[in-house]
Amino acid sequence: MAGHPTPDGILQLGMGFWGSKTLLSAVELGVFTELAQGPQDGDGLAQRLGLHQRGSRDFFDALVALGKLRREGGRYTNSPDTEVFLDRAKPSYVGGILEMANARLFGFWGSLTEALRTGRPQNEAKEGGNAFDAIYSDPVRLEAFVRGMTGVSMGANMAMAQKFPWSKYQSFIDLGTAQGCLPAQIALAHDHLSGGGFDLPQIGPIFEQYVASFGLAQRLRFYPGDFFKDPLPETDVLLMGHILHDWGLEEKRVLIAKAYEALNPGGALIVYEAVIDDARNQNAFGLLMSLNMLIETPAGFDYTGADCQSWLRDAGFHDTHVEHLVGPDSMVVGIK
Amino acid sequence: MAGHPTPDGILQLGMGFWGSKTLLSAVELGVFTELAQGPQDGDGLAQRLGLHQRGSRDFFDALVALGKLRREGGRYTNSPDTEVFLDRAKPSYVGGILEMANARLFGFWGSLTEALRTGRPQNEAKEGGNAFDAIYSDPVRLEAFVRGMTGVSMGANMAMAQKFPWSKYQSFIDLGTAQGCLPAQIALAHDHLSGGGFDLPQIGPIFEQYVASFGLAQRLRFYPGDFFKDPLPETDVLLMGHILHDWGLEEKRVLIAKAYEALNPGGALIVYEAVIDDARNQNAFGLLMSLNMLIETPAGFDYTGADCQSWLRDAGFHDTHVEHLVGPDSMVVGIK
Repeated sequence: MAGHPTPDGILQLGMGFWGSKTLLSAVELGVFTELAQGPQDGDGLAQRLGLHQRGSRDFFDALVALGKLRREGGRYTNSPDTEVFLDRAKPSYVGGILEMANARLFGFWGSLTEALRTGRPQNEAKEGGNAFDAIYSDPVRLEAFVRGMTGVSMGANMAMAQKFPWSKYQSFIDLGTAQGCLPAQIALAHDHLSGGGFDLPQIGPIFEQYVASFGLAQRLRFYPGDFFKDPLPETDVLLMGHILHDWGLEEKRVLIAKAYEALNPGGALIVYEAVIDDARNQNAFGLLMSLNMLIETPAGFDYTGADCQSWLRDAGFHDTHVEHLVGPDSMVVGIK
Repeated sequence: MAGHPTPDGILQLGMGFWGSKTLLSAVELGVFTELAQGPQDGDGLAQRLGLHQRGSRDFFDALVALGKLRREGGRYTNSPDTEVFLDRAKPSYVGGILEMANARLFGFWGSLTEALRTGRPQNEAKEGGNAFDAIYSDPVRLEAFVRGMTGVSMGANMAMAQKFPWSKYQSFIDLGTAQGCLPAQIALAHDHLSGGGFDLPQIGPIFEQYVASFGLAQRLRFYPGDFFKDPLPETDVLLMGHILHDWGLEEKRVLIAKAYEALNPGGALIVYEAVIDDARNQNAFGLLMSLNMLIETPAGFDYTGADCQSWLRDAGFHDTHVEHLVGPDSMVVGIK
């Protein structure tokens, strides 16, 4: 045992929701979008955001102390990271994820204990609703959400464009592609490839606009579909990110089998998300994401690289391996 | 601007409520109290805690990855800090604070945006209730809460017992003393002092039992009272911790004036809590605590050392100064 443990780390973690919710409210209120237009003093900023004077100064200064704003001579500006990633007017905006977390997940996580006791979701499903409907039904929110997915996946997507031996293949399709960030990064890095992205039909216009903005409309097309109801398109490489964890083991195996069937001989399946380390004691984000799947889905869970490799081998894939991408993300690869 | 900002820090902070709530649920469920009795495998632990098997392994392993549990050979044990501070059976338990945060604050903070827009509390008061009632009405919860206050204040209290020139004084009283941790630490460090603690009458038995456990019952007595309705007891040194921030400026000045009146000539007032740094850009916990006062009280707010010194001087105190204690806590001292 350590010599003199202190309660500091326990309290910091336990009260960590204060700082977390402060950032989520700042995104909701548009603090960073407002400041991207120029420095403002506290009173002016509070007025433009519609904030009561009682808490506004503490709110802004807490964001300063958390490193998300700067203040000089009484005027606030964004920090370098919030200027790039939390200004709604920039394509690099990742706040759509945090808007969703603020509007939905923060409250649902309040019922974590009940989820742990019952094994049942604690989101819209609890009242007979549907999480996908909640996210997909409002086009403005959906667009912000998929833009957020692009922003948070960019690092991992650029790593996948580099780390996989793309020269061996001619075509690829990203399943559940959202805005199409991964296909765009792969196509930008490898001129010889063509392919596209597969997602629900509502995503089509968002994908096509994004891909066209990179001049990639000739090489990347949108495949509308539902990966449980429809056959998957035939291609050399199928990519499957942030999908398997939404489902129970049976559905996971169904999706892997469908991927095997759709791949050309010698083709590859790449599964990518916050893959948990095999020892299950390092990747806190991956393990917490799995608890998020408990709250959001009837049977979903995240899994280790070893788990996923065994499912791939059971489905007929060979030469499976796991490769770290960035942060909590890894890819699991199997060859048909 | 930095060369290549990444969204990682934004996402870690924004999703920080996941890890935070996971620890709060673990305290609620008694994970650490259970494991203090000995190592257990995941299935046995889940069964004893009444957890569904779906999420329990991810829950325990997330706590491992967060550094709050350890796992060896499939059996879980507490980490050194949770073993000392989150076992309900130990006097060092600080979980009462986290139980309160879990049962009350996490949900109330979900309305932070509304609090910022309206300037109004978002706790029991919103439905006509009262936060003090919610905490003080259940003796078991109250006891856990004041024990938690002891645990989290211990470091600052020991620092106050060392850093103040106690040899100049004969008597002291701690206002809003809770269990009496600070009086006990001061009395243990300085044989020549006698004094006590002032709090609401419900606290009396808890204080007396705690103080007696250190053999200090002869030197420390309990003063029941309400510091707005009753005069403060006369003494050489008055200590006022985690009180001023509960109130608006007018009430703060009333309490400081009452302290001035009660002190013997040459006496000292010590105000201690998470005093915000004068530049208001470092002490994130103090600034977030002030937002917590927005959520919990009609007019309370935290303040800088400079703010507090000016109120003390306005009330007649001289030779004011601020001294850092530990972590986010400082003391502000004024002499009558």
